[in-house]
Amino acid sequence: MLLLIPGPVQTRPEVKAAMAQDIAPWDRDFQKVYARVRERIVAVAGGRLGEHATLPIQGAGHFVSEAALRTFVAPGAKVLIPMNGAYAQRMARLAREAGREVVALPLPDTQGATAADILPALDADPSIGTVAMVFNETGSGIVNDAPGIGAALRARGTRLILDAVSAFGVLPFPLAEHPECDALVFTSGKCLEGMPGMGFAVCRIDRAEACAGNAGSWSFDLSDVLAHARRSGWGSIRFTPPVQAIAAFDVALDLYDAEGGQAARRARYQANTDILYDGTVALGLRPYLAREQQGPVIVTIHQPADPRFDLMTFVEALKRHGVLISNFYNTAAPTMRIGAIGAITPDDMRCAVAAIGAALREVLPRAA
Amino acid sequence: MLLLIPGPVQTRPEVKAAMAQDIAPWDRDFQKVYARVRERIVAVAGGRLGEHATLPIQGAGHFVSEAALRTFVAPGAKVLIPMNGAYAQRMARLAREAGREVVALPLPDTQGATAADILPALDADPSIGTVAMVFNETGSGIVNDAPGIGAALRARGTRLILDAVSAFGVLPFPLAEHPECDALVFTSGKCLEGMPGMGFAVCRIDRAEACAGNAGSWSFDLSDVLAHARRSGWGSIRFTPPVQAIAAFDVALDLYDAEGGQAARRARYQANTDILYDGTVALGLRPYLAREQQGPVIVTIHQPADPRFDLMTFVEALKRHGVLISNFYNTAAPTMRIGAIGAITPDDMRCAVAAIGAALREVLPRAA
Repeated sequence: MLLLIPGPVQTRPEVKAAMAQDIAPWDRDFQKVYARVRERIVAVAGGRLGEHATLPIQGAGHFVSEAALRTFVAPGAKVLIPMNGAYAQRMARLAREAGREVVALPLPDTQGATAADILPALDADPSIGTVAMVFNETGSGIVNDAPGIGAALRARGTRLILDAVSAFGVLPFPLAEHPECDALVFTSGKCLEGMPGMGFAVCRIDRAEACAGNAGSWSFDLSDVLAHARRSGWGSIRFTPPVQAIAAFDVALDLYDAEGGQAARRARYQANTDILYDGTVALGLRPYLAREQQGPVIVTIHQPADPRFDLMTFVEALKRHGVLISNFYNTAAPTMRIGAIGAITPDDMRCAVAAIGAALREVLPRAA
Repeated sequence: MLLLIPGPVQTRPEVKAAMAQDIAPWDRDFQKVYARVRERIVAVAGGRLGEHATLPIQGAGHFVSEAALRTFVAPGAKVLIPMNGAYAQRMARLAREAGREVVALPLPDTQGATAADILPALDADPSIGTVAMVFNETGSGIVNDAPGIGAALRARGTRLILDAVSAFGVLPFPLAEHPECDALVFTSGKCLEGMPGMGFAVCRIDRAEACAGNAGSWSFDLSDVLAHARRSGWGSIRFTPPVQAIAAFDVALDLYDAEGGQAARRARYQANTDILYDGTVALGLRPYLAREQQGPVIVTIHQPADPRFDLMTFVEALKRHGVLISNFYNTAAPTMRIGAIGAITPDDMRCAVAAIGAALREVLPRAA
């Protein structure tokens, strides 16, 4: 079975194998592994050790996003969120329910946001201290211009929280060049091709310290996560983690390095995306995004207009051909969502396109 | 290596093997597994389907505890916590940082709390609406009398949140007989011998509905977890879960049933505990708890008074003999903490006691 989903992604056998062991989180041998993982993550983030720290939050990506919002936006303070996708909407809900004031900036979900989209809203309300945004919108596949927006925020002294869940390791945002960024958040089961279970925020140490007392939640207080690491050592993790997912992540980072890191992985995902985009067009399907808006992570395709088409029926048919795609969609219009990430090669993707064609012919047979 | 820790515990090979696969959380085949796990958990909890629901929270046990406190105790409301151990203190911190008013009832950490300990504090302050407590104190090994306290609370209309993280599946607290209980919380990696990564709250459906709006956190809102299950089906899980840990938990539940369920597992853990308790006494060590206070999950032992004794040195020596115990302690006095739970047999425990003796002789050699 080929998993073509935005995560948890298909992983390599070496990564899966690391899951099948019992581990004591505070064991000295494991703490060496975990301390190394933290340092490797800072390196992938383009941060500087001593200035940036990897702060872990167990569980789903939403949890580490909420932790970043709670820690770096004070209760009642304003946070601007460019609303151009399902994950932006989720970020807004996380912030709102945590008692932060969300300034929602509506934008179309077919277009990546740029600094020009955002600056007027900031000019209109100087009390907005932070922008929180999604880097790669996992719902549609658009990419917001995080580096450009970050530079614009830096120039005006506004802070940034960047949800890089489905971008980290592939779309560059080097933290050392982005001091405006309080937290870059991501999870273990996306573009770094680990197993799901762990979220991480790569944060500025000075900011995490300065924001102590904001969170209103011990579990989601990144400044306490930092304090714990300082007190107990960088190999120690606050509260029981999914240790197997961390061990597997260390192996996943080995494979990432062996492949050639960010540039090589992005090139493979771009090749996957191109094959998928062109291949589905050749099958007569219509992509949701214009070519120039298409990022290298997720491809969304309009569902065929044929009234006989039913997404769940199609997904099950495609599964019989050995390919699993999302059985729901997150875009404004009905789409199919197909992931280009994970341990998937361009050859795999060519097979997947053929399978999509075969499954389509099954669920929408030509009239005789 | 024998893992003798209070979790994540040693697991059986079949459980570990279930971790080594890629899974899409929303895949229909996996949703069947997950829906089954939810029902099986209600059965282990002694609840009634339709009246009780398994509500998942990804991550550490602290997360699901915080979720239960946020959901079932309104902001600013009072919650009484009997403070007789490290995990009670953690519960109090979770509640306090979430803005709930904690009434901390100090009790010695060598004695399980009973209704008689708690009722005077409730009588003294009729505005306390909820008691939150730990069932088995993972720091020391004492067991609080949750069934007796629950009955007393029921009689006076006070609600109960029970942290059964290291008790669930072994110490009985049948929810159908305890309508005063809003949430029984536990995690996948303890007495049910699954892998770490998932927390669960088994809750009364009517109470979870009635408490909508309390949480002040989307991530930790158990009433929203319930609403999601109703909307998307009981096989669906809100936000990406550590799917492998859920698949492994289903296998762990098979093994639990095959062993004979709660009574059989408790009998094995009790046998492990007895061997450990008697064995360490025979080695000249002094248990932290009186025999009648000793629960069947954790055995804590005073560190030898010999000034040459260093816990970390001893733990590393014992590890060379193939046994891993906690390298820290959570009790008022310096102890060693040894777990009696996990896929550990009485024969394993006899070997462990011999290893403890050998390691002790190494780190505390007799003067010539």
